[in-house]
Amino acid sequence: MDMSPFQIPPFQNASDVFFKALQEHAHSQKYKKGKILFVHEDRANFFYVIQTGWVKLFRETIDGTQSIVDILPAGHLFGETALFTQNLSPYSAEVIEPGIIISIPLKILKKEVESNNKLALDMLASMTRYRHQQDREIEHRTIQNAPQRIGCFLLRLTDQNKSGPAIIHLPYDKTLVAARLGMQPETFSRALAKLKEKTGIRIKGATVELNNLDQLSQYSCAACSSEFPCKDLQAAK
Amino acid sequence: MDMSPFQIPPFQNASDVFFKALQEHAHSQKYKKGKILFVHEDRANFFYVIQTGWVKLFRETIDGTQSIVDILPAGHLFGETALFTQNLSPYSAEVIEPGIIISIPLKILKKEVESNNKLALDMLASMTRYRHQQDREIEHRTIQNAPQRIGCFLLRLTDQNKSGPAIIHLPYDKTLVAARLGMQPETFSRALAKLKEKTGIRIKGATVELNNLDQLSQYSCAACSSEFPCKDLQAAK
Repeated sequence: MDMSPFQIPPFQNASDVFFKALQEHAHSQKYKKGKILFVHEDRANFFYVIQTGWVKLFRETIDGTQSIVDILPAGHLFGETALFTQNLSPYSAEVIEPGIIISIPLKILKKEVESNNKLALDMLASMTRYRHQQDREIEHRTIQNAPQRIGCFLLRLTDQNKSGPAIIHLPYDKTLVAARLGMQPETFSRALAKLKEKTGIRIKGATVELNNLDQLSQYSCAACSSEFPCKDLQAAK
Repeated sequence: MDMSPFQIPPFQNASDVFFKALQEHAHSQKYKKGKILFVHEDRANFFYVIQTGWVKLFRETIDGTQSIVDILPAGHLFGETALFTQNLSPYSAEVIEPGIIISIPLKILKKEVESNNKLALDMLASMTRYRHQQDREIEHRTIQNAPQRIGCFLLRLTDQNKSGPAIIHLPYDKTLVAARLGMQPETFSRALAKLKEKTGIRIKGATVELNNLDQLSQYSCAACSSEFPCKDLQAAK
């Protein structure tokens, strides 16, 4: 197996032994849209790396109401935290854009993280970044209104070091964007209309056109505790 | 210095060398209500352990709108994630109930976590628990209504293995409970009135009386992806 899909955080400092074990035990498979990879609170034996496609992590109530934990593109891993929670899946995972997903036995990661302190530190750094992302998410649900939250979502998809006009491509369809932001479809539609009115953005299918990036950032970032450009995006570069 | 305040997660497996370093470098101080310990994005040189009292972690926008990250009682540590983010404080911290707070240089924790893999693993386990707590928080803000969220907050303060009548003591005043739940005071008041109507709870100052725990759990947990009793609280016992 090609090793390039594993050259991602937090595996920068993993050992040759670990990469060899990956080569031996990783299983790469093509999945169609809609495939459920595992279910919340099921026993977890694997963690996953997305080589191509998109994966939705979610949880749902008995009556089927869904809450999205995250939507991940290629180059991300998921399911690894089950190592630290009695091997129970902390969410369900569904393929939402067809692609290749690699599954790796958790016990291989367990062995490496227990013997390689550098990997443990890199995982701590990754977890901290994720924790701050969640802090920001909770903050925005408290102090941003719905149009500002859509604006923030768009701003995080664009090159924030530029100013003036910009074109932003939505990574997945609007129904999913609404769900990712925790909004009902009607709330999302109303909020999007309001955002257009306030900032002059234009939406054509999956493309959003802006006359002026500053106008959007002034509108959304007024209700955010962090500075614009977003520091975490700058640091990730 | 007495070592007992440090006998808390994630320090169960820390080394004697670390505890000796704590003894030498930890600084214990009594603080009044309202004391700001550090400010969001300031340079961080210390992490903290709460020996007595309560601490509010928060962030705020330029115009002063606050978002609460967490409210912590005695036996918790905070500020430690700055180790993994270029030593920048990820939030501000304020003493909200007077008490004794211990500050410890981050470099002592850095040294220990870099040389003691067991501590790194325990920190990963702590971070994972916190991450799931945040996942739940985001989920509840998506699918629970405001009265259900107050109900959930109350349920997590009580002994969930009992059924029938229960008395719950609010850990801090109602204004803070509202802010912790990300609600405006008016929203909180309306939601509390609705919760009383739906579940028959009675509120006397800082005490909440229930005729029937099951009635409250049926109402709130209908909009939650986890089972009642809450698994994370059972696991923490």
